[in-house]
Amino acid sequence: MSAATAQPVIDHPPADAPLERLDAWWRAANYLSVGQIYLLDNPLLAEPLLPEHVKPRLLGHWGTVPGITLTYAHLNRVLARERIEALLVCGPGHGAAALNAAAWLEGGYTEHHPHLTRDADGMRTLFREFSFPGGVPSHASPHLPGSIHEGGELGYSLAHATGAAFDNPGLLVACVVGDGEAETGPLAASWQAPRFLHPREDGAVLPVLHLNGYKIANPTLLSRVDRDELHGYLRGCGWEPVEVAGSEPREVHEAYAAALDHVTAAIAERARTGRGRAPMVVLRTPKGWTGPREVEGSWRSHQVPIADVRSDPRRVAALQRWLASYRPAELFTAEGAPTAAIADLHPGGDLRMSANPRAHGQRQRDLRLPDTAGHAVEVSAPGHTTAEATRVLGGWLREVVSANAEHRDLLLFAPDEHASNRLGAVLEVTGRRWRLPTAPADADLAPDGRVVEVLSEHLCQGWLEGYLLTGRHGLLSTYEAFAHVVDSMVAQHAKWLHTAADQPWRRPVPSLNYLLTSHVWRQDHNGASHQDPGFVDHVLSKRPEVSRVYLPPDANTLLAVAERCLRSRGLVNVVVAGKQPAAQYLDAEAARAHVEQGLGIWRWASTDAGGATDAVIACAGDVPTQEALAAVDVLLDLVPDLRLRVVNVVDLARLFRPHRHPHGLPDRAYTEIFTDRPVVFAFHGYPWLVHQLTYDRPNHDQLHVHGFHDHGTTTTPFDMCVLNGIDRYRLALAVLRQVPRVGDRLGHLRQDLLDRLAAHAAHIRRTGEDLPEISGWRWNR
Amino acid sequence: MSAATAQPVIDHPPADAPLERLDAWWRAANYLSVGQIYLLDNPLLAEPLLPEHVKPRLLGHWGTVPGITLTYAHLNRVLARERIEALLVCGPGHGAAALNAAAWLEGGYTEHHPHLTRDADGMRTLFREFSFPGGVPSHASPHLPGSIHEGGELGYSLAHATGAAFDNPGLLVACVVGDGEAETGPLAASWQAPRFLHPREDGAVLPVLHLNGYKIANPTLLSRVDRDELHGYLRGCGWEPVEVAGSEPREVHEAYAAALDHVTAAIAERARTGRGRAPMVVLRTPKGWTGPREVEGSWRSHQVPIADVRSDPRRVAALQRWLASYRPAELFTAEGAPTAAIADLHPGGDLRMSANPRAHGQRQRDLRLPDTAGHAVEVSAPGHTTAEATRVLGGWLREVVSANAEHRDLLLFAPDEHASNRLGAVLEVTGRRWRLPTAPADADLAPDGRVVEVLSEHLCQGWLEGYLLTGRHGLLSTYEAFAHVVDSMVAQHAKWLHTAADQPWRRPVPSLNYLLTSHVWRQDHNGASHQDPGFVDHVLSKRPEVSRVYLPPDANTLLAVAERCLRSRGLVNVVVAGKQPAAQYLDAEAARAHVEQGLGIWRWASTDAGGATDAVIACAGDVPTQEALAAVDVLLDLVPDLRLRVVNVVDLARLFRPHRHPHGLPDRAYTEIFTDRPVVFAFHGYPWLVHQLTYDRPNHDQLHVHGFHDHGTTTTPFDMCVLNGIDRYRLALAVLRQVPRVGDRLGHLRQDLLDRLAAHAAHIRRTGEDLPEISGWRWNR
Repeated sequence: MSAATAQPVIDHPPADAPLERLDAWWRAANYLSVGQIYLLDNPLLAEPLLPEHVKPRLLGHWGTVPGITLTYAHLNRVLARERIEALLVCGPGHGAAALNAAAWLEGGYTEHHPHLTRDADGMRTLFREFSFPGGVPSHASPHLPGSIHEGGELGYSLAHATGAAFDNPGLLVACVVGDGEAETGPLAASWQAPRFLHPREDGAVLPVLHLNGYKIANPTLLSRVDRDELHGYLRGCGWEPVEVAGSEPREVHEAYAAALDHVTAAIAERARTGRGRAPMVVLRTPKGWTGPREVEGSWRSHQVPIADVRSDPRRVAALQRWLASYRPAELFTAEGAPTAAIADLHPGGDLRMSANPRAHGQRQRDLRLPDTAGHAVEVSAPGHTTAEATRVLGGWLREVVSANAEHRDLLLFAPDEHASNRLGAVLEVTGRRWRLPTAPADADLAPDGRVVEVLSEHLCQGWLEGYLLTGRHGLLSTYEAFAHVVDSMVAQHAKWLHTAADQPWRRPVPSLNYLLTSHVWRQDHNGASHQDPGFVDHVLSKRPEVSRVYLPPDANTLLAVAERCLRSRGLVNVVVAGKQPAAQYLDAEAARAHVEQGLGIWRWASTDAGGATDAVIACAGDVPTQEALAAVDVLLDLVPDLRLRVVNVVDLARLFRPHRHPHGLPDRAYTEIFTDRPVVFAFHGYPWLVHQLTYDRPNHDQLHVHGFHDHGTTTTPFDMCVLNGIDRYRLALAVLRQVPRVGDRLGHLRQDLLDRLAAHAAHIRRTGEDLPEISGWRWNR
Repeated sequence: MSAATAQPVIDHPPADAPLERLDAWWRAANYLSVGQIYLLDNPLLAEPLLPEHVKPRLLGHWGTVPGITLTYAHLNRVLARERIEALLVCGPGHGAAALNAAAWLEGGYTEHHPHLTRDADGMRTLFREFSFPGGVPSHASPHLPGSIHEGGELGYSLAHATGAAFDNPGLLVACVVGDGEAETGPLAASWQAPRFLHPREDGAVLPVLHLNGYKIANPTLLSRVDRDELHGYLRGCGWEPVEVAGSEPREVHEAYAAALDHVTAAIAERARTGRGRAPMVVLRTPKGWTGPREVEGSWRSHQVPIADVRSDPRRVAALQRWLASYRPAELFTAEGAPTAAIADLHPGGDLRMSANPRAHGQRQRDLRLPDTAGHAVEVSAPGHTTAEATRVLGGWLREVVSANAEHRDLLLFAPDEHASNRLGAVLEVTGRRWRLPTAPADADLAPDGRVVEVLSEHLCQGWLEGYLLTGRHGLLSTYEAFAHVVDSMVAQHAKWLHTAADQPWRRPVPSLNYLLTSHVWRQDHNGASHQDPGFVDHVLSKRPEVSRVYLPPDANTLLAVAERCLRSRGLVNVVVAGKQPAAQYLDAEAARAHVEQGLGIWRWASTDAGGATDAVIACAGDVPTQEALAAVDVLLDLVPDLRLRVVNVVDLARLFRPHRHPHGLPDRAYTEIFTDRPVVFAFHGYPWLVHQLTYDRPNHDQLHVHGFHDHGTTTTPFDMCVLNGIDRYRLALAVLRQVPRVGDRLGHLRQDLLDRLAAHAAHIRRTGEDLPEISGWRWNR
C-alpha cells in the first residue's frame, strides 16, 4: 500500500481504539520525532527531500523515541476508555522529540504554544525549533505541556512519579524508566516506592521499565540479566511485572494492549480493596525501533542514526525512505493536520497527558498557616532564655499539619532524622508513612502519615520535588552535611523553576524548603564526616531568582522564616538552624521584623550609639551569633569604652549587591548598617562565601570573616569554634587588632585572651567538657 | 557462674576454634565496645562502678555493635583456618567501637597506636579516647588500622568493598551493610557488583546484610519485607544469599559458622572454576543484642541505651550489670590483657583484618608513564592547529594502559561516557568490563577490561575510591555537570585523605583523578540541564592540602596535567577539558613549563613588552582562552597601539594567597604577572569562584571576571558565550572601558562591538549556526 493511496481507518469509537489506529498514531508520533531531529523544511515530504530541507546540525536522541511513543499511544487507549487522569514522567528525557510529537498530536502543545499550529506551518516550526538555537531543548523541559520532569540528568524519574502520586488518589502516574537510568543509585532505590504508596489514598505509579538494550555505547545491565532474576528483583521491591516483548509491531501492540488492560484492572482493584501487588510493565523492544535497519537494535541508534545527511545524497535518500516508511499521507491531511484516524486517539480535555492541570501547577492552594505566636519563646531580655530552635518549630509544624490535614497536600520528608532533628511534636497528630508489617517496638507509624521517612536523601528529595511540582507543599529536614547528597538534584530543580517561570501557563509551585539542622558546629559525637556547611554555597550558585538562604539565630526567628518559606512559591529556600539548647534573643515581634529586614543592627548589644563606631561585629547563624555576642561581652570587659556595633544577618542574600540578587541591599543601606569601619564577621559556613557575596561592596577590604575551615573532629561545641578560629576570644582579638585606639594595650589584652584559650584547652583535655563559664555563658548586659 | 571464678576455655587450636571460644571473643569485643561508650576509668570493673568512672558525655552507637563484633569473630574463624587475606568494610561506621575493640583484641590497634597497650592502662585509654575531645571519632576513620571506610555518611560501603576487590584475586572483602544504609540510592545500585566482579581475576566481595530491624527511629524496609521477596531481590542482583537468623547466641553461632563454611567453600569454588553465583550472608539479629533488656531489639538501642548514667545510682548499677554480663574475668587477665582463650582467635600477622597492609596503602607502586611526547600535538605557531584535547589524551592513556597492563593496578571509570568523552583509543588495547551475556551489536567488551562503565556516577566514584584506597590507580571521566552527583562522596574522600595524612603508618594512596569534560560551554544539544561548572567550587572548599583544580587550555597542556595527576599521591585532582575540536596554543615543551608554573604570561599574545600595560586579559579554561585571545585580536584591530597582556591560568589554586593553599602564589609574584592595571578575566566556571580565590589579593578592585551565570540552553558554542557575557566582543568592551586613553573613542567602539553581536544574533536565528568568521576564527598574529 503506498502512502498516497492509503485511507484512514475509522471503524471503532476512540473509547477502545483498534490496534491499527494505535499503530497509525504511533507511526505519526515517530514520523514527527524523526522530523524534529532532521528537518528544517518540507515537513510533509510534499516534494522530494533535498539537502537544504535538512538541519545543518543534527541533534537529538532517536534510540529511546519509539518506546516512548508506543507507551504514549497505548496509555492513551486505556486512559480514554477508562476516563483515567494521568501524568507521564519520562525518564529518558533526551527523547523529548517523542513527547513533543505526542503533545502536538493531541493538541496540548498548540494550546500553550499557539504558533505551533496543527498544520504544515506548525509542523515545520515544531521541527525547526527542536534543538535549535532559540528553540526548545531536546529534553522534556518546562516548555512541554504535561511535563514535570526534564530528565536531562538521569536517576530521578521514578522518584518524581512517586512524589506526584502521593495524596493524589485516582491519578495514574506512568513512568518510563530507561534501562540506562535504571543503573543509577537514585533509581535503584526508587523501586521501593510500593512500600510507601497507599493503594487507596495515593495515586498509582505505573513504571514502564523500557529495556531497549543499550546506553550511549554499552549494553544495559537489566536487559542482559536472566528474565526470572529481573522479575525476582522487581518483585522483591513490591512490584508485579508484566512483560511485553517483541520487535514485530503488531505482536507488540497486541501484547501491550493486553498488558495495559490487565494493569488498569489491577490498579482499579487495588484502589477498591487496598490489596494486591502494584503492577508494572517490563517493555523489551529494539533500540531505535523502526529506524534505519543498519543501526536498529544497537547502541548506534542512540542519538542520530544517519549523520551528516546534507553531505551525501545517499543519506538524503535514506532519510527520505525512513520518513516515508511511516506513510505520512495516511497520518496527516494535505494541510498537515492529523487525520481523523489518529486525531481523537486521546482522552480529551484535561485528561490528555499533555494538558493535565496538575502538571502545570494549576491545582494548588495556599497552606493554612496558624499564628506562630502561640509557639514563640518568651524573651524578656535578649540571651537569658534558652530553647531548642527546631523543637519550637516542631510545635508549630504540628499545628500546621493539623490545620491542613483535611486537604492532604502537605508532607514532611526526612531521611530517618525527623525525631533526631527534634520535630517530633508533629507525630502527636500524624504518623510516619509505613505500609509494611509492624512490630511492638515500632513508634508512630501510619499507612498514610504526613511524615515520610526513608534513609535516602535522594528519595526524600525526589519525592518532595514530584509532590511540589504537582502543586502541593512540603519540607525536607536533613543533617546539614548530607544535603550535599542531593546537590545535583537541587541544581536541576532550580533550573526547572527558573525556566518554568518563562511559561505563563505554568503557575509557580510551592517552594522547595530545606531545614538543615544537626549542623556543622554541633556534631559532638559524629565528628568530621558530619561537618560540611557548603550546601548553601551550592544553592547560592544557582539563579538568584530562585535561591534563598536563611540563617535564623534563634527559635522565634526560625518560626518567622519557616512561615515565610511555607507561604512562598517558585523558590529554593534553605534554612539552617540548630537543634541544641541555645540562647534566645528576639521576641516574636522583633524576630518577625528582623526576618522582614533580612539583617539589622542589634542595638541592645551595640555600644556605638553615642559616637563613631570602633568596629562592627557581624554574625550569621546560631552558634556564630552566640560567639559574636560573647566576644562583645569579653571586649567590653577588657575595654569598657569600645564603641561596637552588632549586626545579625538572617537572609544571606541581603549581602549581595542588588544587581546580583533580588534581595540584595543597595550599597547606601549596606553602608549605613556595616559602616565604613572594620567588620569582624562570624559566619556559620565557609568564610569565603561571605567574600563571594560582598567582594564588590564598599569597605570590603576591612571585612574579616571567621567561619568553618574544615577543621573538625569529635569534640565539644566550644572546641569546634576554637579549632576554626571563630571562638569568642579570637573574634575579640580580631576586633582589638582593628581598633587603633587600643594601641599599646593590644599585647597585654592578646595575652589575656590566649590565656583563656589555654585554660579551656587544659580543662577539656582533663574533663572532656567545656568550662562551665563558657558553656553556661549568657548575654547579661 | 560468677565472673570471678570462670576459667578460660582452651581446648581447640585456633585453626578452627570452637564456638565457646568464639562466643568469649564476641563477649570481649562487646564488653570493650560498651566500655568505650561509657567508661572513663575502672576498665576491668576491678572495683564497683561509681559515677565518676562514667563519662560525663555519653556518645556512640551501641545498636549496631553486636552484629559487627559477631561478624568479626566468625570471619576470623574462617580466615585463620583457610589462611585467607581479608578486609572488612563496615557500613555502619558509627559502630566503630566494635572495630576498635576487635583491632585492640587482635593487636593491630596497639601496633599502630603504641599507647593503647593491651593491658588495663591501654584499655582505660581505649575507653577514654573514644568519642572524647582530642581522641578518636565514633566512626571507623583513618585512625583505625584495617579501615578503608569511615562510614559516617551512609551508602558507599558496598561500592568501596567492590573497588577494593577489583584486581585483587585471593582477597576477601567482607562488607557489613546495615539495613538502614541499604535504603540509600548508592547502596541499592551497589548490589549489582557481581555483574562486574570476575571470580578469578578479582577478589571476592562478601556482603553481610545485617537486618537488625531499626534505624535511628524507624523500622528498616528490608527487615520487614517478606523473606522470599528479599532473597529474590538479592538473587536478582546476582547474589546467592545464605540467611543466619536468631537471638539465642549459641544457635546463631552455629548457624553463622555453618554459613561461613559454606560461603568460603563457594568462594573458593568460584575462584577455581570461574562459575557459580556469588554468596552473601543475610544476618538477622536483634538491634542492641545483649544490651539492656528494655531496649534490646528496638530502635531505642540505636545509640546510648542507658543515658545520663552519672545522675542516677540505679543507672550506674544497670550499667555495671550490663558490663558484668559479659563475664570480663573470663576474657581479660587481672592485668587487662586478653586471656589465652581469646588472644589467638585471629589469623595472625598481616592476615589480621586490622593489619592488612593493603588497607594502609602499603601495597602500591608508581605507574609506568610513557613519554607524552609521541602524543603531543604539533604546534608550529599558537592557535593555528586544532585538536580534540580529550582524544589526544585518550591516545596517551592507551599507552599508559598498555605499559601497566601486567600489573593490573589501573582502571578507568566512566558512567557510559568513555567513548563519548573521546577516550576511545584506550579500547584498542583493552575492553570494557562486562560479564553478562553479549550480543552481536556489542562493542569492546571484555570480562576483565581496564575500562569500567556503569551508568552511575556513584558506583564509578565508590569503586574508584575503594580501588585507590587499596593502593591502585585510576581516573574517572564524566560530564562536568554531573560530577555534582558525587559532591558528598568527594567531600568524604577528601576528609579521609587529610585525616589519613596524620597517621604515619598509612602511606599516601594514589590521587583521585577526575577528568570533567563535555563541559558547560559545549552542550550544543543537551542544553541547560547539562550545564553546571560548580564541581570545582565544591572541591576547592575542601582542605587545601588535598584539593587541586586544573583547567588546561589545550591538548598538550592536558597531557602535562594528566601526567602530573597520575604521578601524584593523596590528592583530589580535578581536570576540566573540552572534547571538541579547538585551537592549540602550546607545544609540548611550553605546555609542560606552563603546567609547572601553573599560570603565566603568554608573551606571544601580549603587546605590552615595550611599556606600561594598559590592561591584562586573563583566562582559564579552553573556551574562555579562545574568547580571550579573540578579544585581543578584536581589540588590536580596533586600537592597534593597545598594550595588552595575556595571562593564562591552568592551576587554579595558584590564585590563592600562599597561606590559603600550598600552590598559592606569593603576592609579589602575583603582582608581577597580573600587574597593578585592570584585569579582565575570562573564566570557565562561575565568576565568583575567582573572586573567592583572590578577594584578598592586591588590586582586587580592578579584577573583572566574566564567567558562567547559569544562562544556558540548546544553542551554538558562541551563543553560549554571548548569553553569559564571556564572548570576545564583551570581553573587548570590558577592556576598553578600563583603558582611560581610549577616551572619546569608547562610544564608537562600543557600538561597533554591539553591531557585531547583533549580526551574530541575526545569523544564528536564520541558520542555527555561528557566523563562519566566529567559528572559524584562529589566532593569526
